[in-house]
Amino acid sequence: MNNKEILKKAPMGWNSWDCYGASVTEDIVKKNAEYMAKNLKKYGWEYIVVDIQWYEPTAESLEYHPFADVVLDEYSRLMPATNRFPSANGGKGFKELADYVHSLGLKFGIHIMRGISRQAVHGNCKIKGTDKTARDIARTDSICFWNPDMYGVDASKEGAREYYESLFELYASWGVDFIKCDDIAREMPDAKDELILLSDSLKNCGRDMILSLSPGPALLDYSETYKETAQMWRITDDFWDNWNQLVNMFERAKKWCTHTGGGKWPDADMLPIGPVRQFENKENRTNFTEDEQITMLSLWSIFRSPLMIGGEMTGFDEFTLGLLTNERILEMHENARNSHQVFRKEIDGCEFVLWTASCAVGGNYIALFNLGESDKEVTLSLFEIEIYEERKITSLWDNMELGFSNEITVNVSKHGASVYKIG
Amino acid sequence: MNNKEILKKAPMGWNSWDCYGASVTEDIVKKNAEYMAKNLKKYGWEYIVVDIQWYEPTAESLEYHPFADVVLDEYSRLMPATNRFPSANGGKGFKELADYVHSLGLKFGIHIMRGISRQAVHGNCKIKGTDKTARDIARTDSICFWNPDMYGVDASKEGAREYYESLFELYASWGVDFIKCDDIAREMPDAKDELILLSDSLKNCGRDMILSLSPGPALLDYSETYKETAQMWRITDDFWDNWNQLVNMFERAKKWCTHTGGGKWPDADMLPIGPVRQFENKENRTNFTEDEQITMLSLWSIFRSPLMIGGEMTGFDEFTLGLLTNERILEMHENARNSHQVFRKEIDGCEFVLWTASCAVGGNYIALFNLGESDKEVTLSLFEIEIYEERKITSLWDNMELGFSNEITVNVSKHGASVYKIG
Amino acid sequence: MNNKEILKKAPMGWNSWDCYGASVTEDIVKKNAEYMAKNLKKYGWEYIVVDIQWYEPTAESLEYHPFADVVLDEYSRLMPATNRFPSANGGKGFKELADYVHSLGLKFGIHIMRGISRQAVHGNCKIKGTDKTARDIARTDSICFWNPDMYGVDASKEGAREYYESLFELYASWGVDFIKCDDIAREMPDAKDELILLSDSLKNCGRDMILSLSPGPALLDYSETYKETAQMWRITDDFWDNWNQLVNMFERAKKWCTHTGGGKWPDADMLPIGPVRQFENKENRTNFTEDEQITMLSLWSIFRSPLMIGGEMTGFDEFTLGLLTNERILEMHENARNSHQVFRKEIDGCEFVLWTASCAVGGNYIALFNLGESDKEVTLSLFEIEIYEERKITSLWDNMELGFSNEITVNVSKHGASVYKIG
Amino acid sequence: MNNKEILKKAPMGWNSWDCYGASVTEDIVKKNAEYMAKNLKKYGWEYIVVDIQWYEPTAESLEYHPFADVVLDEYSRLMPATNRFPSANGGKGFKELADYVHSLGLKFGIHIMRGISRQAVHGNCKIKGTDKTARDIARTDSICFWNPDMYGVDASKEGAREYYESLFELYASWGVDFIKCDDIAREMPDAKDELILLSDSLKNCGRDMILSLSPGPALLDYSETYKETAQMWRITDDFWDNWNQLVNMFERAKKWCTHTGGGKWPDADMLPIGPVRQFENKENRTNFTEDEQITMLSLWSIFRSPLMIGGEMTGFDEFTLGLLTNERILEMHENARNSHQVFRKEIDGCEFVLWTASCAVGGNYIALFNLGESDKEVTLSLFEIEIYEERKITSLWDNMELGFSNEITVNVSKHGASVYKIG
Repeated sequence: MNNKEILKKAPMGWNSWDCYGASVTEDIVKKNAEYMAKNLKKYGWEYIVVDIQWYEPTAESLEYHPFADVVLDEYSRLMPATNRFPSANGGKGFKELADYVHSLGLKFGIHIMRGISRQAVHGNCKIKGTDKTARDIARTDSICFWNPDMYGVDASKEGAREYYESLFELYASWGVDFIKCDDIAREMPDAKDELILLSDSLKNCGRDMILSLSPGPALLDYSETYKETAQMWRITDDFWDNWNQLVNMFERAKKWCTHTGGGKWPDADMLPIGPVRQFENKENRTNFTEDEQITMLSLWSIFRSPLMIGGEMTGFDEFTLGLLTNERILEMHENARNSHQVFRKEIDGCEFVLWTASCAVGGNYIALFNLGESDKEVTLSLFEIEIYEERKITSLWDNMELGFSNEITVNVSKHGASVYKIG
Repeated sequence: MNNKEILKKAPMGWNSWDCYGASVTEDIVKKNAEYMAKNLKKYGWEYIVVDIQWYEPTAESLEYHPFADVVLDEYSRLMPATNRFPSANGGKGFKELADYVHSLGLKFGIHIMRGISRQAVHGNCKIKGTDKTARDIARTDSICFWNPDMYGVDASKEGAREYYESLFELYASWGVDFIKCDDIAREMPDAKDELILLSDSLKNCGRDMILSLSPGPALLDYSETYKETAQMWRITDDFWDNWNQLVNMFERAKKWCTHTGGGKWPDADMLPIGPVRQFENKENRTNFTEDEQITMLSLWSIFRSPLMIGGEMTGFDEFTLGLLTNERILEMHENARNSHQVFRKEIDGCEFVLWTASCAVGGNYIALFNLGESDKEVTLSLFEIEIYEERKITSLWDNMELGFSNEITVNVSKHGASVYKIG
Repeated sequence: MNNKEILKKAPMGWNSWDCYGASVTEDIVKKNAEYMAKNLKKYGWEYIVVDIQWYEPTAESLEYHPFADVVLDEYSRLMPATNRFPSANGGKGFKELADYVHSLGLKFGIHIMRGISRQAVHGNCKIKGTDKTARDIARTDSICFWNPDMYGVDASKEGAREYYESLFELYASWGVDFIKCDDIAREMPDAKDELILLSDSLKNCGRDMILSLSPGPALLDYSETYKETAQMWRITDDFWDNWNQLVNMFERAKKWCTHTGGGKWPDADMLPIGPVRQFENKENRTNFTEDEQITMLSLWSIFRSPLMIGGEMTGFDEFTLGLLTNERILEMHENARNSHQVFRKEIDGCEFVLWTASCAVGGNYIALFNLGESDKEVTLSLFEIEIYEERKITSLWDNMELGFSNEITVNVSKHGASVYKIG
Repeated sequence: MNNKEILKKAPMGWNSWDCYGASVTEDIVKKNAEYMAKNLKKYGWEYIVVDIQWYEPTAESLEYHPFADVVLDEYSRLMPATNRFPSANGGKGFKELADYVHSLGLKFGIHIMRGISRQAVHGNCKIKGTDKTARDIARTDSICFWNPDMYGVDASKEGAREYYESLFELYASWGVDFIKCDDIAREMPDAKDELILLSDSLKNCGRDMILSLSPGPALLDYSETYKETAQMWRITDDFWDNWNQLVNMFERAKKWCTHTGGGKWPDADMLPIGPVRQFENKENRTNFTEDEQITMLSLWSIFRSPLMIGGEMTGFDEFTLGLLTNERILEMHENARNSHQVFRKEIDGCEFVLWTASCAVGGNYIALFNLGESDKEVTLSLFEIEIYEERKITSLWDNMELGFSNEITVNVSKHGASVYKIG
């Protein structure tokens, strides 16, 4: 990465999956980019990511069509379906769309699958820069178990490096800033050599791109592999808007928290907020309550997960927009250091979780979560985080100055969270 | 199975794999059939089985060519490569070869892979008897991990039953008597529904065929599934001519011995004897010593494994032919009942294993194995198998009458075996 | 074992536990011995075994009194509590009671715990034949987890052999024929060295005694250890009169069936029939239905478990006595060979299990069990046990000659069993 | 804990085990207390702890004497052996020794075993404040597997609370400040109820005492139990002066680091430095090199383990004393917050580990460890710990000011460590 600035905080952006599955189109991408540029960019949101199967003309939902025909160039490389991305006509790929996103001051990302198109393999297509063909580098024993598009690539085969280099050469020529590579994070150690080849090819392509690895759960035993090859990796399978999955994320974050920082971001997955799953029903909105959304943003922020919006932004209401533009919470997302869980215990019939972090510019953060089924007033001593004197305390979500104290008394809503800066 | 006679003893025959891998040809099959008819048929040997990839024109060894082009009929069914099986010309498949084998008084078998050809799927070929196509019934998430030819079939999909019925209709029309289906025994529970569909289709095809499931090790937890669908199933991965694998088979046989009999045969795999691996070097012969071959035949016979010869029969020497034509041992293979291991223990520095069985026509069998590294004289009391009086004892391999006794003293060679009928 | 006759069939007898727990007395033992001599001896029943804690004066139920005072001789050996066994007065131990049992033509057994009395250890008592003391040979780290009486003995310590030899010297002097040693079968490998020392001491004591190991479940991986040291070993924790435990025994018997015979008897535990648990309530009788008792006896007999009656025999009704005196079933218990399960599968909504065995004097046995919840008529082909011609069939429980056939049609009661001799 | 000051940093002191095993005497304790008062007290070292078996008159090494006679008071409570602790004469226990330690400005601690003396149980001794006896509260099924002294106590039994309260009443009367309770940390969940009872009894005894739980490894799943009941718990079995154990501690510290702070201290065990194992050979000194000792102190300090000196202090050389009196390292031990491992990876053939922590009074700490087998110069960017500007850097072991920079270049010795304050 030439520009180390990119690594200083966890990526923030939008991804098309939660609302459009495999079926996003150019118009949708553009209107979301415009919304972000107008409403969110100044808060640090910047990536616009086109998720899976932009090369499949008939994609229409979360479901993949078995063995559907995909769009390929002459070198076994998947290309945008022009019925869905008209600007890709004439072999231009995502160049025009990326240019448009850049013109708004944002960055552009795409999803890819590990490997090489099965269609290219069975058609025995060419690979750029070598006389080897798709058949020569594909692994006969490596497929994705949830998507029918690809074979894995055998990194030891002649032609494999040329293939991956040709991919990133193409993406760099389009102006891609972010690659979400799928069918790879969880496939350790089987796909480890392929991940290293892919990562090396990206690093040598001449353009800075974030590499994001999916799907989760990533394997803790391979944390060093992820850190050496990528900037973010999923610690969970697809995260959706149900409370059990959100509760479950506390354990995942606890497990990964000491692996966060400096361009290395365990990823708690996208934020399913606002309008989601629009391919099912145009009226779908997130199932999360407002308190649950606050809990989610609080955990993602103190843990410093990448923040990728999942909903259709043009349909955001005031609450949702407010959630994403709270400057104090976003400062915590940027400045928290050495975050970790302090306790998880029952207090008066409700399960509470406390996280803490240092602040890079002085002071500390704490986030108190009520996982219980009723609102509950609790008093929290700063002794819990080893602060033994009175400190200036600020409540971040509502920007309330609480004055100097060595304890906090607060009524935390059911499924809700309170977050504080300790001066 | 209309002809229940077929089920009364474990199948005996020849299979092309151990000597020819994926590359057997019509000439080879015919000369082995002729040898069997002349030398072995009268001892009960009857199946001639063409192993894997008879549909791959360029096959030449044990290795599979990645994504090689295979021969298909218009209905997604694999057909013999006519460069290797000339009589298949004109779409006749194995009909002429099967007829020839039948004309010798023998039975004809072929190997198949679970599923449907990947080439047919990506070519979106037709399926006989339905307007569904290969693409409609193939599972995008099911491949064989060691062979590149097939996708699994989704038994719940419309067209799946028609596909499997069309296969067995074809094989019945050829006159096939034995199906060795691969990539299935070990794939429980993932491929269980497909196995049941396949087995049902076979049972309804109008011709009696033995169904043999590979590869092993089969899973003991699915023993009832194997028994309901097939006549034999492999209890080991590929068995080759090395001593450690042979020693290892004792534990496998011990584990499966109570699941044997009545058309249900746990299968210890082929006998790698005589000339083997001829695709590597024309002079390859089995690595097993004569004593080790006796041990192998003794275990397979008292355990009542199917007996499938793996070597090129026309190259057999006198010893090898004698091994396969010992009438007393073959009687044991047919008449042993309730076989099981009695002990495995060290005697005087050598590990000995004792097996016993009842004999269906009266009396008992015992087989005493010396797994140790030196010849050893031992005395075995019939008390070990709960015989408390003197009995007439016959040594089977050498046809020696030992008279009446309640014990046996014998020098068992290193890696060798002695087998007795107790009258 | 000097008298090999003892090993020819699995032991049959009575044990005080199921009815009296830790609290049996001399009177009870004698009246049961008298009953057995009169009613059961001629059918092969012969052992009368005094179970646990005959050395504890205050024992009154299944529960052990924590750290209760026990009766010891001067050599750290437990002695019968004379309030419960008056004939033991004057240090005579079980000599008079054993003599009485022998006078009835029966054999006498006792229960012992592995190890040495904790009371002897903390009292630092002497050991016969050595100047070492109880403290010197006890293991500080080995106790029984369900009984407070003993420490394990360290077989490697000087004095350990003398201790165990002094025990069996004493038991031989009393005339003991059967030792049920507890806290040992399941304690492999921790107590393996102690088991071997104990077994060696028994073998050298000059008197033939059966050694029975408890509690279960014994560990299959130590089957050879059990066979080398003992004649029977428990394959289950305490078995009581509830149907789930009985159903569960089918899996245990299936797992151990090839380890049975020739003085080596996996033990399915006592038969809780007739009056049981009399320390709880004088009116307690077995919870098993008559069909369930038939199922139990059928399984124990074809599997050839030792048969130890658990109930108070003087309270047996005609059914119970009939159960134990069916000569055809008891012949099967003696003559079955190579027993094993043939199938366990659902037939018409009920789960059926089929066992088979060879008969040492010709022919075969089968036992068909209905584990389902309704009576069910089924037709069983002899093909299932590889008999292909018509045979003479006799129903054993009711002694019905069914004539010559190759199949059996029978209505098997819910939870019941039918057992046949196939001529 | 009334005095919360005690909880603010991890305990620092001396323990008799590493040098004297079970055999420490009053004289030794006193001379070490005097040394600490004179040389170490001003740096924060304050606890003097008498380890295991002070109640065993004949103890002489690390080995326990099987069932040796121990000293008890009339209430089943273990008392100091007066041959080893003369001031305990007349039933005074540790009162005089504790007074002496207090007179030096230090604190006094003792080791106890979970449970109640087996000798008291088999002697059926009294318990203070109840008519229940030792026999009534002891668990017949709970012993320590490596020490012969105790039975576990059944927390649900009447008399159990009185027993534990009588213990802490006695220790409070002596003036004990620190309890190291053994045979408990690793015995979860079996001993959980007993731990809670013990902890409650301590909390209610009227005197502040640190509770330290042994042996390790403690179970991560019970972290909340340890935190609620104790102030420190061992994360390792006995730690000795060998390099492999030290390397192994990095993984343990990594696993427990987010559970540290605020009176909750995962404990990496004593520091085996200077003269150790004097019961074996009077000349024994630590096997650790100076670099390894620096590595140990650096890891223990940034992880904030309790620091308990294991060697005989009067035999310390200048290096060892310097190791324990480096004010900058001890400040880190006190002020580090949110410590965790940053990476563990190979650099130029050597395995390096980096830890970081925030500092409670501003800035950060880093500790860089060379686990490799050669000295190695490395350059470490502050980017690794997410510091993006130049900072004032101080090398702590040698008190070198390195000026302002955003990277550090240092030659780290084989098995050595460098530690820095980042201003």
